[in-house]
Amino acid sequence: MSKKYSKENIEGILKSLKGGVIMDVTELGQAQIAQEAGAVAVMSLYMVPSDIRKEKGHYGEARMLEALGIDFIDESEVLTPADKKYHINKREFKAPFVCGARDLGEALRRIYEGAMMIRTKGEAGTGDINQAIEHMRQIRKEIAELVGLWEYNKFLIKEGKKGMEDELRRKALKEYEVPYELVYEVAKSGKLPVLNFAAGGIATPADATYMMKLGADGVFVGSGIFKSEDPKKRAKAIVEAVRYWNDPAKLLKVSRGLKEAMKGTAIDSLEEKDKMQHR
Amino acid sequence: MSKKYSKENIEGILKSLKGGVIMDVTELGQAQIAQEAGAVAVMSLYMVPSDIRKEKGHYGEARMLEALGIDFIDESEVLTPADKKYHINKREFKAPFVCGARDLGEALRRIYEGAMMIRTKGEAGTGDINQAIEHMRQIRKEIAELVGLWEYNKFLIKEGKKGMEDELRRKALKEYEVPYELVYEVAKSGKLPVLNFAAGGIATPADATYMMKLGADGVFVGSGIFKSEDPKKRAKAIVEAVRYWNDPAKLLKVSRGLKEAMKGTAIDSLEEKDKMQHR
Repeated sequence: MSKKYSKENIEGILKSLKGGVIMDVTELGQAQIAQEAGAVAVMSLYMVPSDIRKEKGHYGEARMLEALGIDFIDESEVLTPADKKYHINKREFKAPFVCGARDLGEALRRIYEGAMMIRTKGEAGTGDINQAIEHMRQIRKEIAELVGLWEYNKFLIKEGKKGMEDELRRKALKEYEVPYELVYEVAKSGKLPVLNFAAGGIATPADATYMMKLGADGVFVGSGIFKSEDPKKRAKAIVEAVRYWNDPAKLLKVSRGLKEAMKGTAIDSLEEKDKMQHR
Repeated sequence: MSKKYSKENIEGILKSLKGGVIMDVTELGQAQIAQEAGAVAVMSLYMVPSDIRKEKGHYGEARMLEALGIDFIDESEVLTPADKKYHINKREFKAPFVCGARDLGEALRRIYEGAMMIRTKGEAGTGDINQAIEHMRQIRKEIAELVGLWEYNKFLIKEGKKGMEDELRRKALKEYEVPYELVYEVAKSGKLPVLNFAAGGIATPADATYMMKLGADGVFVGSGIFKSEDPKKRAKAIVEAVRYWNDPAKLLKVSRGLKEAMKGTAIDSLEEKDKMQHR
């Protein structure tokens, strides 16, 4: 197991995930569909013994998942609402974590805690992509602000004027509550230092393409495939939509001949307390 | 008078103001000090007949000032609190206007109304530069955000992704309530399309230098000079501080041998209702 979670192995896994689709499967048949469709990974809850699934303290749960030798642990608001405020110190684990984030602050705090991958916190199981889009837009907007502070800082410094470093520091420490260096890295590069996937409500190739257009490095999809009328074909179509997101001619071909998508639940119809994203 | 307010004349005046000090004088003796010290312009309330000064409806007042053949009209919160919300449509006038602004939204709305110059809305007459700094910082921060949206937009477009134009449009129309083109211009250039002066509470060469460091194109100063113990020397020192803001050796020389500055009033000691900046 120590080799499994070596730096090289984890980096290799991360590289293989970029630009791909991760499928959330609940039974063996779905895992086979995912594999045939070309999913880069599966989230396989069904492989986790039920006594761990019932476990509520999510630190212990994560330890057991690590002991199982799982590739990646999703610190999921769907499965582990035990502690809403404090999240696992992921640096204590050897297994890599993926964590949900609704805005740049959440993303940076999770990354600082050790997350190796971020995903949006859309409403899983609804087929309504609205929230995932909003979270992705929010993160883009906040990254743009950091880019602006950094670019404007350079511009001012060149003119001999006072730069924007104070403001970058304030944002890091007061607004995002993470070290300055992490914010500086995002401001300079214009992106998160880890992969950023879209998740929650993705049900069609067009949904997947749009998330890629908005800057996602890949997508998570589960019920959007397996609750549709044509899981096999749809799984493949979504994988191709993600692969060819920037090629309209291929995308047109991909979307043709699909049957009915999953019956969606509009997020606005959910009670606030029932929403996963608040966890 | 029509020649006085020709486009060429106004542009000439604006050019001559950049990097300079505008002095707010209340009597002839002060105007002479200002001229000798090298002020680029004077704000001369004493030259305005008292019946105009008493006038409350600021549209009529501005019309009379224009008829006087004055170079620039300051749509001042100090003098014209008659209408707090709606400002003069400055495009109806031939005389150029300078207007106060505490943030980028105020600045852009005034520019859209036709202002040819913006200044911060510090607390005039206090010798406390605190608010002027806060307003300048706020404007810088908001300009940086626009620069960021624009730079990030270019970066995304180059990668084939969806850009940030929606967000720029939203900011323009909903947040700043001005046409998109104006916001786009600021985002692209990283500065206001008109001169941006610092005003309110400037009383020492160091104050003036700091405002220039923060990005001001020049400064307004009045009581900071004329309520000090050495108006003549101080007027000259502030003019030189603004001219040489980026030359520490010269600045050191400028500040030497000045007598006591004006007795300041800390802004925090003023009642909210007495503050000019809210007008």
